[in-house]
Amino acid sequence: MTIEAATGPRVDYSRVFSQAIDRLHAEGRYRVFIDILRNKGAFPNARCFAGHNGPKPITVWCSNDYLAMGQHPKVIAAMEEALHDVGAGSGGTRNIGGNTHYHVDLEAELADLHGKDAALLFTSGYVSNEATLATLAKVLPGCVIFSDELNHASMIAGIRNSGCEKRVWRHNDLAHLEELLAAEDPAVPKLIAFESVYSMDGDVASIAAICDLADQYNALTYCDEVHAVGMYGPRGGGISERDEVADRITILEGTLGKAFGVMGGYIAADRTIVDVIRSYAPGFIFTTSLSPVLVAGVLASVRHLKASSVERDGQQVAAARLKSMFTEAGLPVMDTVTHIVPLMVGDPVKAKKISDILLAEYGVYVQPINYPTVPRGTERLRFTPGPAHDEAMMRELTDALAEIWSRLELKKAA
Amino acid sequence: MTIEAATGPRVDYSRVFSQAIDRLHAEGRYRVFIDILRNKGAFPNARCFAGHNGPKPITVWCSNDYLAMGQHPKVIAAMEEALHDVGAGSGGTRNIGGNTHYHVDLEAELADLHGKDAALLFTSGYVSNEATLATLAKVLPGCVIFSDELNHASMIAGIRNSGCEKRVWRHNDLAHLEELLAAEDPAVPKLIAFESVYSMDGDVASIAAICDLADQYNALTYCDEVHAVGMYGPRGGGISERDEVADRITILEGTLGKAFGVMGGYIAADRTIVDVIRSYAPGFIFTTSLSPVLVAGVLASVRHLKASSVERDGQQVAAARLKSMFTEAGLPVMDTVTHIVPLMVGDPVKAKKISDILLAEYGVYVQPINYPTVPRGTERLRFTPGPAHDEAMMRELTDALAEIWSRLELKKAA
Repeated sequence: MTIEAATGPRVDYSRVFSQAIDRLHAEGRYRVFIDILRNKGAFPNARCFAGHNGPKPITVWCSNDYLAMGQHPKVIAAMEEALHDVGAGSGGTRNIGGNTHYHVDLEAELADLHGKDAALLFTSGYVSNEATLATLAKVLPGCVIFSDELNHASMIAGIRNSGCEKRVWRHNDLAHLEELLAAEDPAVPKLIAFESVYSMDGDVASIAAICDLADQYNALTYCDEVHAVGMYGPRGGGISERDEVADRITILEGTLGKAFGVMGGYIAADRTIVDVIRSYAPGFIFTTSLSPVLVAGVLASVRHLKASSVERDGQQVAAARLKSMFTEAGLPVMDTVTHIVPLMVGDPVKAKKISDILLAEYGVYVQPINYPTVPRGTERLRFTPGPAHDEAMMRELTDALAEIWSRLELKKAA
Repeated sequence: MTIEAATGPRVDYSRVFSQAIDRLHAEGRYRVFIDILRNKGAFPNARCFAGHNGPKPITVWCSNDYLAMGQHPKVIAAMEEALHDVGAGSGGTRNIGGNTHYHVDLEAELADLHGKDAALLFTSGYVSNEATLATLAKVLPGCVIFSDELNHASMIAGIRNSGCEKRVWRHNDLAHLEELLAAEDPAVPKLIAFESVYSMDGDVASIAAICDLADQYNALTYCDEVHAVGMYGPRGGGISERDEVADRITILEGTLGKAFGVMGGYIAADRTIVDVIRSYAPGFIFTTSLSPVLVAGVLASVRHLKASSVERDGQQVAAARLKSMFTEAGLPVMDTVTHIVPLMVGDPVKAKKISDILLAEYGVYVQPINYPTVPRGTERLRFTPGPAHDEAMMRELTDALAEIWSRLELKKAA
């Protein structure tokens, strides 16, 4: 035993941790989670527990359960049946006891949805991005990844954890992407990683043009469709189905926790690539598989949305209506071509203030979006109207926002 | 546009991916997932779909649903109630719409289980390890992590992704750990990362002695109790509760997908540390939260196992009985002090052969464990007897193994 260890300068861990929290408060971006319970069958109505005596009724305007499939009778019935048939959890990794028939069926259903050979389930969309990108790049020696600058944190994590070279292209700027591709050695493996719908700005990538570049420069493509699957395309296959380019994407990634209403993530690709990820990705191999109860629910949800467009159409109508109401009220709604309706605030403290007033005085729940989810200075409120948000709810929301905008003397739209 | 890009040497991606799969076949470690459905209320009985005409009855011997809580009536009832009350999924990240009252309650329950200020839920144990270790080390500038050489892949991923310095100590060798600690600058932040129960060997760390070293060298401690929570200690608080040392561990990590029978992971620690991870870890922030249906099931499971020791006792009795049956039959059972019962085979092809015969001829499901889950040359079969495995099942299993051991002329115990 060394005496030095006991008597040398000591690290004050508590101080380091406290300072990390203090920095968040100082920047006005310390996050307070609003404690809620949704009301199944009556969503977007919910109950809020935060700072009240008992639950108080609220309307949820920031859920990613975009099509309210989380309360769809078919989804609920399928989950209840699985719960009673096989129980709560899978009991193991996919390799060791946790590969249920539900998993096998859902992977086939998702492969079919995207017209691919195969699909692979992960415990979340985050994990599917992280595990797939990190593993792909490791399997391809010397691989260079070309990443849109607004790619989601999970893609950035996967790219960083792959340890490979990264080139960041300006958001949706294909001339810049081509410039970077052209500068690279043709003999080097290349992967272009991007999203179809960018969830905080609501804009869309030109998948066909990206695939043209990929063909020209012999690059693989990785497209994150988490904010599009279930919602775009005749069967809910995403923007790639709508634009009829799914066959040109090497690896398509999606989530089961947004439009499909449950939880989990997946990739769809050709059989060998899926087999490689299945066999090599630590984030897939070493984790308990999705509960069969969840998988059963997703199966029902995916099958329903393959056949029904009522929910998709309802969402588009609601989004267009809300955007036009916001515009008429002079609110600074950001121009989007999707179901996402963001109001720019540009300041974390003000964004939180608006959100607090909405919740306390109007029973409206919309979370402020701040750094690191969006760049500093672009803090915003982000609304996700869906088929279950009716005209009266939209009117109430717009009137409340107009009142708060005046009260706080916030900047109106030009 | 450059002409070179179109005419230069082209990467043959298909060949690279096929070769990656070929390597696995060549080593005899290509994994085939066995397709099953458990029978709720009758576990370890299940149905197997692989290679049969329709489902065939099997007995599961490799589930991590150690205490069969995945079929406990309280767990099923709680999940059914939540499903009908709030629906399938949470609809968002913890920060944006996905923080339900179930999550808040479960974190309080888990904090109480371990005698800590606070707890934080993750979508899996893998993610809890990866996200916490990577984030902790980043918040502590210059941090050095001391890692037991047999730590789980998820801890290794977190340590690697933190980008900090790592020192690997020989498995459970505290003299080696001390040697490494003593060699380090006292002014440098230090974190000792280890597991309480190592799941593939079934041995246990001396938590008290590790904490002594941590005190002496001013290091933080991170203890993975995923194969111990629910199963050890009077309330299922793990080895740290059994050994009365939970208060000495800085961060305790556990799973909701093994003894608690559902899915998910968590950490428990002091309030500030939990707040730091909650506020800074991308793997926590940027992911849809656990489905409230799962969280409700875990709440029931944790509460039940806090009050009931019947399941824990039943598991210990079953494990001791199976080990003694294996020993009497001359099978090479590895010496363990826990509920884990591994039989050493030492060859991936033979391990798979035994497993295949058990499934096809005896209706016994136990997955072969191969690299990278265990080091090459130590391939094994790993049995997880629990309170629901009865004497007749154990007798059948032992007789089957004895027959196969003779048939394949495998090495018996000394």
